[in-house]
Amino acid sequence: MDTMRWQDDHLLLLDQTKLPLTEEYIECWDHIILCDAIKKLKVRGAPAIGAAAAFGVALAALNYTGEDRDEFAADVKKAIADLGKTRPTAVNLFWALRRMEAILEDIRTYSVKEQQERLVAEAKAIFDEDRAMNEQMGQYGLELIPESAGILTHCNAGALATAGFGTALGVIRAAHQAGKEISVFADETRPLLQGARLTAWELMQDGIPVTLITDSMAAYVMKQKLVDLVIVGADRITANGDVANKIGTYGVALAAKAHGIPFYVAAPVSTFDLSLESGLQIPIEERDTEEVRRVGDSITAPPGVPVYNPAFDVTPAELVTAFITDRGVFRPPYLETLRAMAETK
Amino acid sequence: MDTMRWQDDHLLLLDQTKLPLTEEYIECWDHIILCDAIKKLKVRGAPAIGAAAAFGVALAALNYTGEDRDEFAADVKKAIADLGKTRPTAVNLFWALRRMEAILEDIRTYSVKEQQERLVAEAKAIFDEDRAMNEQMGQYGLELIPESAGILTHCNAGALATAGFGTALGVIRAAHQAGKEISVFADETRPLLQGARLTAWELMQDGIPVTLITDSMAAYVMKQKLVDLVIVGADRITANGDVANKIGTYGVALAAKAHGIPFYVAAPVSTFDLSLESGLQIPIEERDTEEVRRVGDSITAPPGVPVYNPAFDVTPAELVTAFITDRGVFRPPYLETLRAMAETK
Repeated sequence: MDTMRWQDDHLLLLDQTKLPLTEEYIECWDHIILCDAIKKLKVRGAPAIGAAAAFGVALAALNYTGEDRDEFAADVKKAIADLGKTRPTAVNLFWALRRMEAILEDIRTYSVKEQQERLVAEAKAIFDEDRAMNEQMGQYGLELIPESAGILTHCNAGALATAGFGTALGVIRAAHQAGKEISVFADETRPLLQGARLTAWELMQDGIPVTLITDSMAAYVMKQKLVDLVIVGADRITANGDVANKIGTYGVALAAKAHGIPFYVAAPVSTFDLSLESGLQIPIEERDTEEVRRVGDSITAPPGVPVYNPAFDVTPAELVTAFITDRGVFRPPYLETLRAMAETK
Repeated sequence: MDTMRWQDDHLLLLDQTKLPLTEEYIECWDHIILCDAIKKLKVRGAPAIGAAAAFGVALAALNYTGEDRDEFAADVKKAIADLGKTRPTAVNLFWALRRMEAILEDIRTYSVKEQQERLVAEAKAIFDEDRAMNEQMGQYGLELIPESAGILTHCNAGALATAGFGTALGVIRAAHQAGKEISVFADETRPLLQGARLTAWELMQDGIPVTLITDSMAAYVMKQKLVDLVIVGADRITANGDVANKIGTYGVALAAKAHGIPFYVAAPVSTFDLSLESGLQIPIEERDTEEVRRVGDSITAPPGVPVYNPAFDVTPAELVTAFITDRGVFRPPYLETLRAMAETK
């Protein structure tokens, strides 16, 4: 199973809205179909969105059939702008688009054909590096996992949220591969059930013991001493260590704090946005209210009932025990340690 | 809309599993159909279960067609035993059954016909008293509600959970009727969505402003200062003030504590089980795992994924700001104040 796969001159993208019952790939031949796929969460997870957007830029480049460098650049920049409007919270999207735009600037004097090749190569590099970073993160995270541990996670920060291996689930995978006795509690993660549909499915495929619970059970499972640590992914982390992640993460972090359970955030460097001082500055996406009024085809609430549907929340830095990144494990004071992380290579 | 209604010689019971889309009453002519309705949550909510069970005893009494007092008593006691096996956590069920059994003992020398009449009358009294208690509770609770307040509630502790008016929603109704500017955040309450299906529906019918959220949003809504207080119902409260209530209540209570938001529990005296020292002694029902793997007809998780599905959790007394009861408002130290409450009339 691949979250996405570049094939000659187009992208195959796993439609995650159809999981776990159907494994179906979308053929993407232009960036418009990728904009739609990102908006509709057919691809989701901060690192996966970043990689998909980079491939979208590459597709826009390939679709230019002329020879005019300025027209070519205008087309590619239009695609970058379109892709940048799909989802506001995950910073990896903007990170990947900036990286593609920087390459474009660097190679403006090359022939269109050469520029096309370089942009495709850069998108592939973003994808390949993400997988490598996740594996690195898994190794760094290993030290934090006891030989035998109950681990709670929220949403899906797995292979499906990345180019492969996963961030939070990457650490869990690494621990499992290292022979540690891991069992995972997966929050189902309403409204879009990424925990039930994706995390549970991924872990079952890898033979890692998983128990599905509703979001409302997380605190009680902790109270029963079934959880030794929490690991989640992130959509954006600010300079002070505040973390935007899937709605519900904050409640899990509060419950972990109340039970003295370590709360770890696993994320690659591309998820850190040190240009922002704190989580207050992160734009929080609000999604279609109908997501809360139904599940699949089942209507779950009175038609027309007012709904609030923020897709993310912000967990304040003081609830985060440590960040697991591809450059190591970082602990408070985050203002200092995260700055140092950004400056290392 | 009535949760249940006694009609001549049988009970009409609103099938709550069909709400909010269909309003359908089940005709109950014997206690067997009531056992099934209670098990399947067609009627739910601690006080409503108690009243329904009492009517179940009355139906068993009416179905005896002979004249033999001993046979009659055996039949009624069999029904009491059957009804007592339906759900383990809510104590109102056992309270109502004990009350019916006590009456049966008192009137053993009466004719069967007289005994039948007395048992029907007692079931009706349990039902009528519950509604009156809820209205009384609403009045006592009023003092705790500011003139303008955002109130978060979990599950359904409304008219549908009782003989009418509601416990937690009764306090909210009373505040609304008193002209206070109330707006309610209703947690949807997975897995069975009593908040989305029942609480949102009830409040909309009464014109009380309500916003539906997923359970995972409660902590974030609190952080945004949209919630001034939490009110929930209860299924059983022990002598020290520990509260068993719908799964997810504990997480809400932890979040309220973290934000300095008062957390109130509204419950009639029949919900207090002072024979138990603490919540550790309350049996917690675990329900069919399929409830977590699907919503209505929609499959939400990989088939066969292991699931943990406790229907209730226990919120420790130290997270409860006060109990709102039909005998007044009680604050810590609960060991003393709840004992005093039980001794007053």
